[in-house]
Amino acid sequence: MRGWLAAKQSGLAFEELTVPIYGEEWEHVKREMGEIQPSSGKVPILWDGDAVIWDSLAILDYLADKVGRDRFWPKDDAPRGMARSMVAEMHSSFLPLRRQCPMNVRMRHEGVGFSEETTADIVRILQLWAEARARFGRGGPFLFGTFGAADVFYAPVVSRFVTYGVPVPGFAKAYMEAVWEHEWMQAWIKAAEDEQWVLEQFDAVPSQG
Amino acid sequence: MRGWLAAKQSGLAFEELTVPIYGEEWEHVKREMGEIQPSSGKVPILWDGDAVIWDSLAILDYLADKVGRDRFWPKDDAPRGMARSMVAEMHSSFLPLRRQCPMNVRMRHEGVGFSEETTADIVRILQLWAEARARFGRGGPFLFGTFGAADVFYAPVVSRFVTYGVPVPGFAKAYMEAVWEHEWMQAWIKAAEDEQWVLEQFDAVPSQG
Repeated sequence: MRGWLAAKQSGLAFEELTVPIYGEEWEHVKREMGEIQPSSGKVPILWDGDAVIWDSLAILDYLADKVGRDRFWPKDDAPRGMARSMVAEMHSSFLPLRRQCPMNVRMRHEGVGFSEETTADIVRILQLWAEARARFGRGGPFLFGTFGAADVFYAPVVSRFVTYGVPVPGFAKAYMEAVWEHEWMQAWIKAAEDEQWVLEQFDAVPSQG
Repeated sequence: MRGWLAAKQSGLAFEELTVPIYGEEWEHVKREMGEIQPSSGKVPILWDGDAVIWDSLAILDYLADKVGRDRFWPKDDAPRGMARSMVAEMHSSFLPLRRQCPMNVRMRHEGVGFSEETTADIVRILQLWAEARARFGRGGPFLFGTFGAADVFYAPVVSRFVTYGVPVPGFAKAYMEAVWEHEWMQAWIKAAEDEQWVLEQFDAVPSQG
């Protein structure tokens, strides 16, 4: 999701190659990729001429290099410093949340009991959102006003919070709605629903019935 | 180390504030910091006017925003794409290596048995170094020729490899020597040795005798 949102945000034309990351097929794709480029065998990967970029944050900043930083990051130092820090923290942290709540935009779980560590992650994220919205969010409904790198990076969190029914305060609910209703998120969710049947061919994900 | 090397690389003047991250004192500092800014309670933190940046990658790119990207990142797309990907991978990965081999530039351990996961991390890092040096390293002894963001991010790995006596091939040894002998690394190592006695006051690190 992050790499794709970053590509949309760049405004550049791009071609998508979807790979099934469940089951045997993915092992095969990884072996093939391992032979042709130095990625870590994970998605997403961006190919651009002879450049290969294999991490969502690297992809985002590589694209920002191409189209100009302002399309992704706030112009002023204080919000840009905070946006860069929030994105970096998302990039390296919140492992308990990632582990306990795997992302799947199609799924809904109710009554999930969160571990202490996951709860701490959720609280931390809500604090960051509150701070960004209160200090720098006046120009629009997103973390720093208009949609940008920070929203690209927290969009999967929004999806997890929706999937696992995380109880959130009003300001966070409004932010999550803005992200969820964003045209690109809706397109992603629609595509995920359309591909449900493909995944089922691999017997790797439970059907929603 | 990364935040400090990034600050040196920026060429900007900066003031250092060293905090003891072992023991009670650090708990106190964290409580104080929590009241004045939104960092995650970890080091490093960069304060610049009313901007607060609390992650080493965010600090590096915030500084690159200030002084120009070329001081940190390769100019051409292919090496810059690889450098950004390598740095991002270092930023989010290699947990087994980090856990099994904590960084301490003063320490030397011999005959360490590495776990399978740590060995996989080491192999992956050596592959990345080999690829960068072979494809893009002709302009100097560092990963992409001249010292830059990728070296800032892999410098702590060099320190770990030295500390734990990781056996490496010749090209990697030459690279590690270039990093270790870099003027800023030498200054950092010297400062760490000078502060050994301070740390001992907290009874938190073993003396080297």
